[in-house]
Amino acid sequence: MLNRNDQLDAWDRESFFHPSTHLAQHARGETPTRIVTGGEGVYIVDRDGKKSLDAFGGLYCVNVGYGRPEIAEAIADQAKSLAYYHAYVGHGTEASITLAHMIAERAPDHLNHVYFGLSGSDANETNVKLVWYYNNVLGRPQKKKIISRWRGYHGSSLMTGSLTGLDLFHKAFDLPLAPVLHTEAPYFFRRPDRSMDEESFSQYCADQLEAMIVAEGPDTVAAFIGEPMLGTGGIVPPPAGYWEKIQAVLARHDVLLIADEVVTAFGRLGSMFGSEHYGIKPDIITIAKGLTSAYAPLSGSIVSDKVWAVLEQGTDAMGPIGHGWTYSAHPVCAAAGVANLKLVDSLGLVDNVRDVGGYFRGALADAVGGHRIVGDVRGEGLLAAVEFVADKDDRTFFDPALKVGPQIAAALLKRGVIARAMPQGDILGFAPPLCLSRDEADVVVQATAEAIDEVAKSLQGTS
Amino acid sequence: MLNRNDQLDAWDRESFFHPSTHLAQHARGETPTRIVTGGEGVYIVDRDGKKSLDAFGGLYCVNVGYGRPEIAEAIADQAKSLAYYHAYVGHGTEASITLAHMIAERAPDHLNHVYFGLSGSDANETNVKLVWYYNNVLGRPQKKKIISRWRGYHGSSLMTGSLTGLDLFHKAFDLPLAPVLHTEAPYFFRRPDRSMDEESFSQYCADQLEAMIVAEGPDTVAAFIGEPMLGTGGIVPPPAGYWEKIQAVLARHDVLLIADEVVTAFGRLGSMFGSEHYGIKPDIITIAKGLTSAYAPLSGSIVSDKVWAVLEQGTDAMGPIGHGWTYSAHPVCAAAGVANLKLVDSLGLVDNVRDVGGYFRGALADAVGGHRIVGDVRGEGLLAAVEFVADKDDRTFFDPALKVGPQIAAALLKRGVIARAMPQGDILGFAPPLCLSRDEADVVVQATAEAIDEVAKSLQGTS
Repeated sequence: MLNRNDQLDAWDRESFFHPSTHLAQHARGETPTRIVTGGEGVYIVDRDGKKSLDAFGGLYCVNVGYGRPEIAEAIADQAKSLAYYHAYVGHGTEASITLAHMIAERAPDHLNHVYFGLSGSDANETNVKLVWYYNNVLGRPQKKKIISRWRGYHGSSLMTGSLTGLDLFHKAFDLPLAPVLHTEAPYFFRRPDRSMDEESFSQYCADQLEAMIVAEGPDTVAAFIGEPMLGTGGIVPPPAGYWEKIQAVLARHDVLLIADEVVTAFGRLGSMFGSEHYGIKPDIITIAKGLTSAYAPLSGSIVSDKVWAVLEQGTDAMGPIGHGWTYSAHPVCAAAGVANLKLVDSLGLVDNVRDVGGYFRGALADAVGGHRIVGDVRGEGLLAAVEFVADKDDRTFFDPALKVGPQIAAALLKRGVIARAMPQGDILGFAPPLCLSRDEADVVVQATAEAIDEVAKSLQGTS
Repeated sequence: MLNRNDQLDAWDRESFFHPSTHLAQHARGETPTRIVTGGEGVYIVDRDGKKSLDAFGGLYCVNVGYGRPEIAEAIADQAKSLAYYHAYVGHGTEASITLAHMIAERAPDHLNHVYFGLSGSDANETNVKLVWYYNNVLGRPQKKKIISRWRGYHGSSLMTGSLTGLDLFHKAFDLPLAPVLHTEAPYFFRRPDRSMDEESFSQYCADQLEAMIVAEGPDTVAAFIGEPMLGTGGIVPPPAGYWEKIQAVLARHDVLLIADEVVTAFGRLGSMFGSEHYGIKPDIITIAKGLTSAYAPLSGSIVSDKVWAVLEQGTDAMGPIGHGWTYSAHPVCAAAGVANLKLVDSLGLVDNVRDVGGYFRGALADAVGGHRIVGDVRGEGLLAAVEFVADKDDRTFFDPALKVGPQIAAALLKRGVIARAMPQGDILGFAPPLCLSRDEADVVVQATAEAIDEVAKSLQGTS
């Protein structure tokens, strides 16, 4: 056993190129390898028997929790009967067709067609292609720019990494690419002018967007993409009135709206979709993580009837659409999706999010909101964040080199709880499985309070 | 049963956005839905009980054949023990680490690190990002252009659809994007000057490439990407001497070589990698399809020691690399990969390709090579193509509107055999599972001869 484990560790250092990792430190053995072997509910366990409460649900994706036999068996059955056939030129499987139907049933009424991908990144690649195709069919070849927000997260491919508005994903990769522009992040806590209230900050964001569209020329701007609630950029609910004001601007300039619901779809905010939660009427919705709860890789682009009509017009004019992935609508992944969406319903997870989400965020705010280094506690449903500040009154932030967020996440992990130090700013993010109980929420809150205390004290010691 | 089936058909038309499909015709019910329910060996079966010999292996991906319980069980076991955990910051699973090691063992000696993605498209996205990062670390910020070949196929995302050199994937999508250039396709049968022999055509391709690099400025050209053997662009083996001459040009100008082995890796050509088959020494290899035989979505970028050293240098200078997919190294997909590569070995499939591949291509050439409308029969290993011509002596092609290739594929399907009408030109492609037997090869050859005869006669009737 020891030999086998040592071998895995050696192979890991020698050959496994991990995502979002310090490659040199990992290869040199300076950072830990953690080999995860199992999970149940909100807990994972590693090969050393260490159990952790995963309050980030993998990467906010294991929505139904770990170890659900219903999904594992659906995957097994599909793998045994037909692991793969492609979906090109009208081919399908019972699983993929059923899932398309189930998604259309759950999505807002005006969205009824699903293109399947594998990741949020590739779904947003599809979306940009569809938006460009759409405007070509409509005879508007200049209408192609995509406006995203600073701190938006939309993927890590070249185009979707461009849509992403975070330095880490641009730096050293020559991004963003030219057709992408970024506008103000709807991040009330970090608003430039602290005298603004939420409504006036929302108006400011909408005005900034409109000024950008007008400056670029509305006939050059194709689409606006945004998460209903900012995710990786800081886990930030939109300020009051934001989506209403933004949508009014988009409507004035005939700019399509892509709602990136990779994190929010299928219950995360306590509604089936974030779009309904915030009164958003998107032209395209991006889905991924919660679609399968990560049991198998699957994403999708849900296309509105308005866009679909133009796509049909396009294929009538030009023939089959030149877009496809070999693994689009992969049967094993689709089977996982069908079982997962059934489980979301049968376990009543959307209701649980409203109940436990409110409880968790309330308890978190009570426990740490008054802490000297806590500037903001925020969230919606089962998404929450604690943002740290060096000085509360002046809203000054810590030197990033101090790595306050990562230190607190590490102190939390020591206590058996996984939360995520978000990549830009000292922000601790929570996105537990949607089956989280109140007792489990209490465990997370208490460990968080202790971890913050521990790191705050050590910071005092060093300053 | 009838009701259920009708319901699936209705749902398919209403909600399923199929890849590479005529969307309007499909929605109107003018094109067939085929719902595939099972498969075994080289055969698939649909819900109507119709069985077809799949001589294209899905989309050249079901390399070990359908219905292999060894892979289905590996998937089932992994889904039951741990369906998902992420691979960020040094996390892993036994399956993902083992698979990285197995790939490094099989790849050419100088390539030892594997970044996992889900599709060939996303792996090539990763590759372009790595190439740009590499030149930024080396202080060569201008060295960023990527040269691909006309008729190359490298994906369907915005950047990889740009790398792809086929009209269908550019048209109406505003591709290729700016940093991508295309050079001569290594397509001997369609060489512009028919007086050239293979070696001189290879020299011509290398000269064209070098002229492009020199014209653009070698300090602006980062990488060249090519499939060891052209795939979707026509299934065309490289002309004699091609890779030797191309690599000499790349070496002279310090241009990296990405070998896109999505189709060729893991045995398709009768060697474990296409790179060893043709004496290619790539800096990065793209893998996907044959890695899991499509039982689960998985791709990879295998990085050479030379590139890896620069990536390490980059993270030492700049911290963790800003690139990651949520589903990178997905445990269920990695488990499928481990079981699949073991099966490739235990079934002796690489040897089978050499044996049955040679037999199949020989029989095909004997049966149809002399036909009036057959201009070329070509291939390598278990990849083969028949290209059709209106006039053999003049090498004139049919009017694309006649759809000769698709007609022959349809006539073949009527006879229970699936081959693929390649997207550009009248070319019938074959890429059967690597377990094809000689008897099964005979079935494919005979049906192909009949299908060609049938369509050739109907063409005569109409002309």
